Order: sequence, then C-alpha cells, then structure tokens
Amino acid sequence: MKVLVTGFEPFGGATINPALEAVMRLPNEIAGAEVVTAQIPVVFGKDAAAVAAAIDAERPDVVLCVGQAGGRSHITPEFVGINYANARIPDNEGNQPIGRLEEDGPDAYFATLPVFAMVDAARAAGVPAAVSYTAGTFCCNEVLYELLHTLATRHLGVRGGFVHVPYATEQAVTMGEGTASMSVDMMVTGLTAMIEAAVTASDDAVAAGEGTEQ
Amino acid sequence: MKVLVTGFEPFGGATINPALEAVMRLPNEIAGAEVVTAQIPVVFGKDAAAVAAAIDAERPDVVLCVGQAGGRSHITPEFVGINYANARIPDNEGNQPIGRLEEDGPDAYFATLPVFAMVDAARAAGVPAAVSYTAGTFCCNEVLYELLHTLATRHLGVRGGFVHVPYATEQAVTMGEGTASMSVDMMVTGLTAMIEAAVTASDDAVAAGEGTEQ
Amino acid sequence: MKVLVTGFEPFGGATINPALEAVMRLPNEIAGAEVVTAQIPVVFGKDAAAVAAAIDAERPDVVLCVGQAGGRSHITPEFVGINYANARIPDNEGNQPIGRLEEDGPDAYFATLPVFAMVDAARAAGVPAAVSYTAGTFCCNEVLYELLHTLATRHLGVRGGFVHVPYATEQAVTMGEGTASMSVDMMVTGLTAMIEAAVTASDDAVAAGEGTEQ
Amino acid sequence: MKVLVTGFEPFGGATINPALEAVMRLPNEIAGAEVVTAQIPVVFGKDAAAVAAAIDAERPDVVLCVGQAGGRSHITPEFVGINYANARIPDNEGNQPIGRLEEDGPDAYFATLPVFAMVDAARAAGVPAAVSYTAGTFCCNEVLYELLHTLATRHLGVRGGFVHVPYATEQAVTMGEGTASMSVDMMVTGLTAMIEAAVTASDDAVAAGEGTEQ
Repeated sequence: MKVLVTGFEPFGGATINPALEAVMRLPNEIAGAEVVTAQIPVVFGKDAAAVAAAIDAERPDVVLCVGQAGGRSHITPEFVGINYANARIPDNEGNQPIGRLEEDGPDAYFATLPVFAMVDAARAAGVPAAVSYTAGTFCCNEVLYELLHTLATRHLGVRGGFVHVPYATEQAVTMGEGTASMSVDMMVTGLTAMIEAAVTASDDAVAAGEGTEQ
Repeated sequence: MKVLVTGFEPFGGATINPALEAVMRLPNEIAGAEVVTAQIPVVFGKDAAAVAAAIDAERPDVVLCVGQAGGRSHITPEFVGINYANARIPDNEGNQPIGRLEEDGPDAYFATLPVFAMVDAARAAGVPAAVSYTAGTFCCNEVLYELLHTLATRHLGVRGGFVHVPYATEQAVTMGEGTASMSVDMMVTGLTAMIEAAVTASDDAVAAGEGTEQ
Repeated sequence: MKVLVTGFEPFGGATINPALEAVMRLPNEIAGAEVVTAQIPVVFGKDAAAVAAAIDAERPDVVLCVGQAGGRSHITPEFVGINYANARIPDNEGNQPIGRLEEDGPDAYFATLPVFAMVDAARAAGVPAAVSYTAGTFCCNEVLYELLHTLATRHLGVRGGFVHVPYATEQAVTMGEGTASMSVDMMVTGLTAMIEAAVTASDDAVAAGEGTEQ
Repeated sequence: MKVLVTGFEPFGGATINPALEAVMRLPNEIAGAEVVTAQIPVVFGKDAAAVAAAIDAERPDVVLCVGQAGGRSHITPEFVGINYANARIPDNEGNQPIGRLEEDGPDAYFATLPVFAMVDAARAAGVPAAVSYTAGTFCCNEVLYELLHTLATRHLGVRGGFVHVPYATEQAVTMGEGTASMSVDMMVTGLTAMIEAAVTASDDAVAAGEGTEQ
C-alpha cells in the first residue's frame, strides 16, 4: 500500500505551517504502507491541482491532506468537504474567491477515511483528537472537496480525507493566554496513529463508520 | 406568499427552548407574507415528519426551521445540512442514532435561503448574526437535511433553511460567566429581519449568494 | 441614602461605552436611595480624580463604578482591586503606565459592596451575573483600587465597588460569532438590582459576604 | 542558592496532577541553584502547613508552588494571592471553606518572584506563557497567599510565588475539542526556564517588575 500525505506551505503572514512541519517528519513507512509526502501551495486552484498531480504521479491507495486550523486544541479529521469557497483573507497569490468550487459537483462529499477510528487511534497514542464537521471555507476545505471530487470521478477505490492540526507551540508563544497549541512532535505521533488506522481499516469498517464517538 | 416557521420543543432537561419561544412571538405577517408556525418534537424521525406534514398542510413558499445552539453568541443561519446523525445525548424519546439519515440521499444539501442577505438584515436590525457551516449532528441538522431533501424531491420551488439561536438570557442566568446568551426579544427581532430578507430575495439573488461576508 | 454611580467614556476607538450607556439610563431612585451619576474619562489619574471629586461633591453612602469588559458574557462585580497598572493599549490621552498605583498603598483592597448578594439580585431579575476576581490592569482596576484607597483613608463608612458589563449588543453586531454581548436594557435591569442589593445590605451582611456562590 | 518547588497531588477525581508530574521531573540543579521538591495535599490548611514545614526544613532562598489550572493554554505565573477562599468543589478531605484565610492578614500579597522575566524566559525556551492576575479561590490561591504571608512575617528575604500549568495532554485526550493542554515535557522546560529567571534576578529587577509585557 502507498499513502500520499500533503501539507500546506505557510500562509497569512506566518513563517511556518505546522501541518507541513508535521508531515515532513512522518516516517517513510507506517503499518507496512509506504508514505510519500508533498508540499502544496496555499493558492485556490493550484493547491488542488498539486494534490491531483501527486496522485497521478504516485498512484496512492490513501490520500491524506493536512492543514492548520489555528485556535483548535485537538487534531481533527474532517467529516465532510463542501462545494463552496468564501475566503476571508487572501490566499498566497491574493485570491479571495466566493462561490461554488465545482459548478456541477454535488454540494458536498463525505471523507472516505475512517475518521472515528482515526480519532480512537490518536487518543490511544495519547494525542487529543476529535472529528470535525466543518473544514471552513478557505483552501483547506477546497482541497478536501476537490480531492474527494477527483477520487469519486477519476480514482475509484482510492480513499481520501483531511486532517486539521492546531497551532504549533512555537506559534502560540507570541499569542495570548487562551490560544491552544500542540507540539509538532505530538502532531507527528497523532498523524502516524491516524494513518495507521486509515491504512488498516477495511472498506466495510469505513463504510460503517466504525470507531467510538466521544 | 406564505412562510412556515418551526421551533423545537425543549430537550436535554431544559424547561424552555428559546427557538420555540422566539418563533411563537413572531408577527403573523412579515413583508406582506403570511407567517405560520409549528412546534416540532426533538425526536429523530418524528421532527422531520412533523415539518413535512406542516408543509403538506400549509403549502408554504418558504420554510424556516429554528433551533437552539447553546453556547453560540450570534443568530446563525446554517449553510449546509449533512446526511448524517451522531447523537451525543438521547432525544426526547431516548433515541441516539448514528449513521446516514437517507441511505440513498446525497451527502449534503445547501440551504436554499439567502443566508448572507439574512445575516446582513439581522445586523441592520441590530442583532449579532453570522453564517454557520455546521448544524451539528443532532436533531437540528437532521431536520435541516430532511427538509432540504423533501423540498428537492417533492416540493420544487419551495425554499428552505435553518437558523440556530443562542441560549436565552434566562437560561444563562444559571450558567457560568463565559456562557453567551441573547434575549428572546432580540431573537424575535433578528428572525423577523431574516424572514423579511428570505421573503423578498429573488431567486437569482439566492443563487448568487448575495450578501456581505463578515 | 445616596448612591454615586460612574460610567467610563468610550475608549480604544469605540464610539460608545456600554457602561456609560447603562449608567445614564438608571432611575433617579432605587430602593429609596437617590441615584446620582457621573461620566469619567478613560485616562489614568484623571479618572480616579474625577471619582474622588464626585464623592467630595455628592457625599454618597455608596459608590459604584461601572466599566466595560469586552468579551465577558455576564455582569461581573469585582471582588478586588490591585495596586498595579499594566496598560496594553494607550488610554485616551496616550498614557500606558506600568507599575504600582500608590507607592505606599497596600497591594490590594477588597470591594466593600456585597458582591455575592448583588449577583443573586441580578440573577433574580433575570440577568446573567457572576463575581469576578480580576478587574484587569487598565483604568477599570485603577479606578477601583483608587476608589477603595480613597474610601479607606478619607471616607470611612462609605462603601465602594466596581461592576464590569459585557459589550453592548450593537457592538457585537460588527464582531464575529463567539463574541458575547448583552443589551443595554438588560444591563440597566441588572445594575438596578445590584444597586438595590448594595443599598439594602447591612454592614454585617457585607462583612459576612452574604449571598450564594455559583 | 536553594529553590523549593512544590506540586499538588491529584484532586477532583483526577488520577494525575500535571503540576506534580512536572515538578517531579525537574533537574536537581538549575542555574547553579539546588532544586528540592515536595508534594503537598489538596487540603485547605494542610497544604499551606506542608509548604511552611518544607521551608523550615529546607531553608530555601526561593519558593515556587505549582498547581493545575485546567482550561488554560499557557503556563501562568500568578501576580497576586488574595486573602479569601471560596471552594466550588470539595478539597481532598471534603472541606469547602468560604471566607478570609487570615483574619488579620492584608487583603492580598503580590508575588515576590520576577513574574514578567519568568514569562520572557519561558517564551525564549519555546513555551507559551503569560502573567495571570487571578489564582482563583481554591487551594492554589490559598497556598500562594499563605506562602507570601509566611514569607512576609517569618522569612524576610525569601522570595515566593506560584505558577499554574494547563491540563497535561493525556488529560485532554478524554476531553472535547476546545480543551487546551500542554505536554508535561514542555511544562518541565517552561518551569526550568522560569526557575532560572527567578534564581538569577536581582532584588532590584524583581522590585522594578523587569520583563516584557505581552
């Protein structure tokens, strides 16, 4: 098996993106599956195109995109990607789109990774995790939606999903009390456990939504 | 024109549901449209059935369901309903379903109300409001999804959506500092402004997502 | 009896200060006590001097200063004022002091109003309220500390304290979901109930800290 | 020089106290100062007595008590301890006191550690930190107040203070998204940096409140 894991470059004036930092530190093999990684730009359109190109090049069995959700305390697999963008800040090339992502696409796709089992796995590894039901309306959601659209239309049988990580601790150092964060080491531990769960889950288990809700 | 507005009964041990309180105080006419209201149970299946029955009985042009999102500070029209339930507490008949709502339904429907224009209208009326991108996984989301499913399959041309309201102030009296709330009077003002926006919006404006993002 | 109630002018770029809005709408008499009000500047030193001058002019039995604590959800009587300033933003004349307020004053004074009974009274009137144990390190705390210092050294027998109010609802209209607020009408109701509790409390009750903790 | 660092035992049904976990992992020497540690009970009266006994036994130059403030995201040195208890949950022997801690003591004492320099040191070590102006009204504040009272009346020249730490990550694993936490390793790094700042600060620097405010 092969797993493609992508991480976004920094954006919004930040010097690092903890998602990318964590992805770059993942082991080359998890639960017997080869792990390949890719950095993708925070640019509407180009980010999804980069993911699609990596899929074409790597032919993975599982695709996991990782991004930052500043302010969250937990690592959060996303349940759903929606066919909509509403950018409150410019992306790294100044775009601020509002509207549907795919004119003729469905309103949303559910991730095809075992998000509940992934949360269980992260918790078992000691990492706070929870399923999220909104990936926002910026590039993270766009990449998730477009990934699932691509998989549904062009790569049947390949599973995909998205995980948001908190601010890295070093980012929170310059922010006020009340801003949650997580060490990149812990993100690596959590992502590794989640990837293991994604790789080892059966199709039936994914379809049944196996795992423990909080 | 006719608008059907529904409010949930109390649940989870509460003695009131601010959504119902506010809905019951709405005027009988808003922007020339007749307003009819209905109380619906917090019971999976029965709630959606009650909404469907009210649609059949009233033949409204617009349907707005209202529920409580305890902890939010703003009145929040929901952008999307998802085809999934995951009840963390029992409903009023003890059900705690997990899984798809409609086996063969799409993963999600976008509300067909002008959610951004509704937020603008509430703000212009002095009421804090914002678009929400998750209605949760309890009865509120279920009712929204099933409403949009019913409208898409059986009542083409009827618009529908869902608005969450905060705790009423009297509920927050017994909760700690940090628990946001809103007076029911203000909810009535906000809902009235939102209904006026929903009633007066053109189909094109709804499709174009007219309104100001925050 | 006579009660002096002060409210701060707007600051930090805001066009209103909900504390002042609420104070200006208080009735002229509460529980048989005359209510006199004063607007005070958000300027270190001048604010406390204005309170002291109003005390000299009005000879009140009870002094209650009111200020805004943006972000809080409840009306919060302050338990303690500390002998310290640490201004994170400039006051209305550009001062940003850091350090002790009174070189030879004690580190802190407890308010001499019945803060718990005041919270009970506000709740009984339907207004969310809670005791706070920090008034911050800006002008609100300074005014509280200097008030209590003045009362302790120059006006023995006069009781004093401070109450923080949330953002007014109209302020939150332009802020994001998650920003709590309260209508000025409700602040007036809550402050009136609190003043009644302050006016009618016996010295023994104040000393004993009567009232119900949450 | 010698530094006494204390950590509370678990309380409120928890199986660990991250404060104690972190204190127990501190090095034996920091910046040339000997570090001695003590576990203290979460019992009003007995906790302060245990600190006082450890001071008598160890004769330290600096005393730092450490406790848990569940829900905070940052390590927070406390600026002030107040002469008041108001226990919302029972301590480990079932006590829930309300009232002054020392009938004839002053209303509050400021910590005599360089809290701002300690925050700077933790941040320089990569650990989110901020000064706090309330230690609450449970055992943590009681221990801080009683420590400062003891030092002021019986051990002139010995400096003392209190630091709150967040939930440990393993505690947050069973809590929902939105609950901030920190790894115990990071707490050890932060506390070590803070102790170094406390040990190396001159009396003048402490008196002047040297350090950078956020």
